[in-house]
Amino acid sequence: MTGTLYGVGLGPGAPDLLTLRAARLVERARVVAYPTLAGAPSFARSIVADLLPGGIPEIVIDLPMRAGDRAPAQAAYDAGADRIAQELAAGRDVVCLCEGDPFLYGSFMYLHARLAPRFPVEIVPGITSVTAAAASAAQPLAARNEVFTVLPAPLPEERLAEEIDASDALAILKLGRHMPKIRALLEARGLTAKATYVERATLGEERICPLADAPDSAPYFSMILVLKGADPWL
Amino acid sequence: MTGTLYGVGLGPGAPDLLTLRAARLVERARVVAYPTLAGAPSFARSIVADLLPGGIPEIVIDLPMRAGDRAPAQAAYDAGADRIAQELAAGRDVVCLCEGDPFLYGSFMYLHARLAPRFPVEIVPGITSVTAAAASAAQPLAARNEVFTVLPAPLPEERLAEEIDASDALAILKLGRHMPKIRALLEARGLTAKATYVERATLGEERICPLADAPDSAPYFSMILVLKGADPWL
Repeated sequence: MTGTLYGVGLGPGAPDLLTLRAARLVERARVVAYPTLAGAPSFARSIVADLLPGGIPEIVIDLPMRAGDRAPAQAAYDAGADRIAQELAAGRDVVCLCEGDPFLYGSFMYLHARLAPRFPVEIVPGITSVTAAAASAAQPLAARNEVFTVLPAPLPEERLAEEIDASDALAILKLGRHMPKIRALLEARGLTAKATYVERATLGEERICPLADAPDSAPYFSMILVLKGADPWL
Repeated sequence: MTGTLYGVGLGPGAPDLLTLRAARLVERARVVAYPTLAGAPSFARSIVADLLPGGIPEIVIDLPMRAGDRAPAQAAYDAGADRIAQELAAGRDVVCLCEGDPFLYGSFMYLHARLAPRFPVEIVPGITSVTAAAASAAQPLAARNEVFTVLPAPLPEERLAEEIDASDALAILKLGRHMPKIRALLEARGLTAKATYVERATLGEERICPLADAPDSAPYFSMILVLKGADPWL
């Protein structure tokens, strides 16, 4: 009997935004795995630090930070998948800790692609940073037949413009140094007043403000919510 | 001191996909509120039937089923909001039970629009049917800089075509009698083989199959996931 690989979404950061299923799996874990970035502490692990059993093996997949070259990260995922495969082959379940949801811009899918062909896999969906940001900002995302788009800010300007024009409501992610570009695109469309900046939703130092008051360089855990509709949902 | 209105996302249906925060709020609720459709049992309430304290007031907002005329539903929300407002004004918190996430195509936003200007509101994000469907189908939604779009099937064909062409990955909701239209649009773009049909994700009679094998009329709790990328995320 081989073990099962669990891809467990842990939500946006607040420990009580774990699902009951995720909490149970983490509490009973015999082996966990998670990625880290260039030796930094794992955000996913920090979310469940109080739930993790002590003394269990932790498979840390340390991803090198090297822009533009995917090969080193691929090699790290290969090595991590091999270590997870050894545990699964020995009959032990492995709980992979995933911030947010495992399948929405999550790094888990790199492990899933390597291991799902050989081992049973179960995915536990998690609260996404998008719905968490909307909740923190008390701003609805989409209603009725509105089209809702999740848009990564690093895309080229022309593509971003096309997507912003085509959609009714957007969450714009991965802002970083792309803030000025996004700001200009929204301003040119008269959407600045309909855009809300949300930083570190559900985390301690949460910050929510109109786009006009947002910083010019945004940290990783931030996004812009845009709601074009004039309809107040009454 | 007025009470607080809690908009609590309960997830896609499996009771253990509630968050710890949602479970705690429901268990301690003194008043709950939820919509029903034309007298049918409430799906949201059924998710937490085992957690709800007995004997507390339940404000049921019964929505008439009348296509094309929003006025009767608006009147029902008005009346429901009034009853909730009475509890809040008397200092009692009201927990509004929301399937999925309160702010992603949720009916809670109709109450929110009516009550947020007058009372403190807290939103608890929930697992969306979209991430739940991806988890059940073991199919990633989007990665890297892919654009992800949530698309309601009732939209006109031309708009649907534009959105499908503009996006890298989609979740197509509210299928119902629109299945043939969606099928034809995807087939014309060579996307049938990249589309997965998911019905009643995380619920008892879950059904997952390639789009080619899906029924011609889909129930309310169903969607199609489309992933254009040929990249296997390795």
